[in-house]
Amino acid sequence: MRILLIGASGTVGQAVAGALAPHHELIRASRHSGDVQVDLTDMASVERMYREVGQVDAVVTAAGHVHFGDLVSTTPEQFLSGLMDKLMGQVNAVMAGIPHVRDGGSFTLTSGITAMEPIRQGTNATTVNAAIEGFVRSAATELPRGLRINAVSATLLTEALDAFGPYFPGFEAVPGERVGQVYRRSVEGVCTGRTYTIWQ
Amino acid sequence: MRILLIGASGTVGQAVAGALAPHHELIRASRHSGDVQVDLTDMASVERMYREVGQVDAVVTAAGHVHFGDLVSTTPEQFLSGLMDKLMGQVNAVMAGIPHVRDGGSFTLTSGITAMEPIRQGTNATTVNAAIEGFVRSAATELPRGLRINAVSATLLTEALDAFGPYFPGFEAVPGERVGQVYRRSVEGVCTGRTYTIWQ
Ligand SMILES: NC(=O)c1ccc[n+]([C@@H]2O[C@H](COP(=O)([O-])OP(=O)(O)OC[C@H]3O[C@@H](n4cnc5c(N)ncnc54)[C@H](OP(=O)(O)O)[C@@H]3O)[C@@H](O)[C@H]2O)c1
Ligand SMILES: NC(=O)c1ccc[n+]([C@@H]2O[C@H](COP(=O)([O-])OP(=O)(O)OC[C@H]3O[C@@H](n4cnc5c(N)ncnc54)[C@H](OP(=O)(O)O)[C@@H]3O)[C@@H](O)[C@H]2O)c1
Repeated sequence: MRILLIGASGTVGQAVAGALAPHHELIRASRHSGDVQVDLTDMASVERMYREVGQVDAVVTAAGHVHFGDLVSTTPEQFLSGLMDKLMGQVNAVMAGIPHVRDGGSFTLTSGITAMEPIRQGTNATTVNAAIEGFVRSAATELPRGLRINAVSATLLTEALDAFGPYFPGFEAVPGERVGQVYRRSVEGVCTGRTYTIWQ
Repeated sequence: MRILLIGASGTVGQAVAGALAPHHELIRASRHSGDVQVDLTDMASVERMYREVGQVDAVVTAAGHVHFGDLVSTTPEQFLSGLMDKLMGQVNAVMAGIPHVRDGGSFTLTSGITAMEPIRQGTNATTVNAAIEGFVRSAATELPRGLRINAVSATLLTEALDAFGPYFPGFEAVPGERVGQVYRRSVEGVCTGRTYTIWQ
């Protein structure tokens, strides 16, 4: 397959690339590096990326920031920033991507364990990730030409323990290699509308 | 209790008022009618409302629009409008409301059956409602002074069958009276972080 991986240079993106690259033609996109540059929060940039890349069989997004902070001191602008970045960014990638994905192709989006397991300062993350899983659940019923859509919700990656470990006390981390395989299940599998969870 | 009901003039709001008014002091808010006017999408208006109303024991929101339409022809602006209205509107009501709700008080938000049960043209609704349920799940862990927060997710109300029945083929409708009682359970109960569902 010809697969567009957005966020390829990140921790999750590298794990996904590791699982897909041996089996597929991978086009790597990021904001600042890779085969093609894109800012998912800017629809014009997303459309330009798809024109550059041409037809693909699958799109995987592994990009998106949310706001971390105490709910009580969070401003509406900060809360909105997570919606605009991680949620609308991935929604933009799907909306603009539909005409560029071949019949029977797929979208795989990235959610995260906080969708179901709240963490300290994580209300924006929980909200955004729950929204992404809702989006996938319903978009699956509306996509044309046999296109599929799923989300992957991983716990913390072993590779991210140094950066984010303190936010996840007592949470088991998983090696990126396992996470990458779950993205592969979504891309090469038959399911749609699902959130694949990688955590207990 | 002294309870602020936002969206009091609507179909759901009237049902909630019917359940709460016999037992509590109810302050009715809507955009254009009631004891106090507010536009939940405008934070300055929300703050003005709370200053006017003073301290309360509970806030119930039963307001919020989402975008209905085919996913393929939905624009990012249309998609965002649902996030700004039903999601950010209720988030604004909570954020600005915290200092005005007495110790041990509560927020009750409105989600909807589409959070879990997709309907035709309903991807924005599913996304927004799932986000609200995520917000409630996590905000419950962060609220100070014993404040609680829940969401109510009803199926179509009998009173709304004429307007929305065609979107919900084969879905059972429930009388507003039953829905109102579930809001009462949230307001007078002990639970927090929950979504009360009124549908099978
Ligand atoms: N790390 C984990 O343990 C973990 C676990 C579960 C879920 N997640 C989720 O996975 C996603 C990626 O996390 P990560 O840790 O891999 O992040 P990361 O290491 O910071 O990498 C982010 C990647 O996305 C790209 N990117 C950032 N903003 C973008 C934008 N607006 N448009 C296009 N590309 C953009 C970055 O490109 P540049 O570097 O060029 O900016 C980079 O390739 C996040 O949503 C996170 O919540 C992460
Ligand atoms: N009806 C149902 O069967 C049903 C079932 C499940 C869930 N829901 C959800 O419940 C919520 C209310 O639905 P509904 O059918 O009761 O709606 P509705 O009859 O249209 O009533 C909406 C109420 O909210 C107020 N409102 C609207 N926009 C507002 C804003 N920006 N700021 C403050 N108040 C605002 C309206 O005031 P004005 O009239 O003055 O504008 C009115 O009081 C919606 O989110 C809906 O998805 C409805």
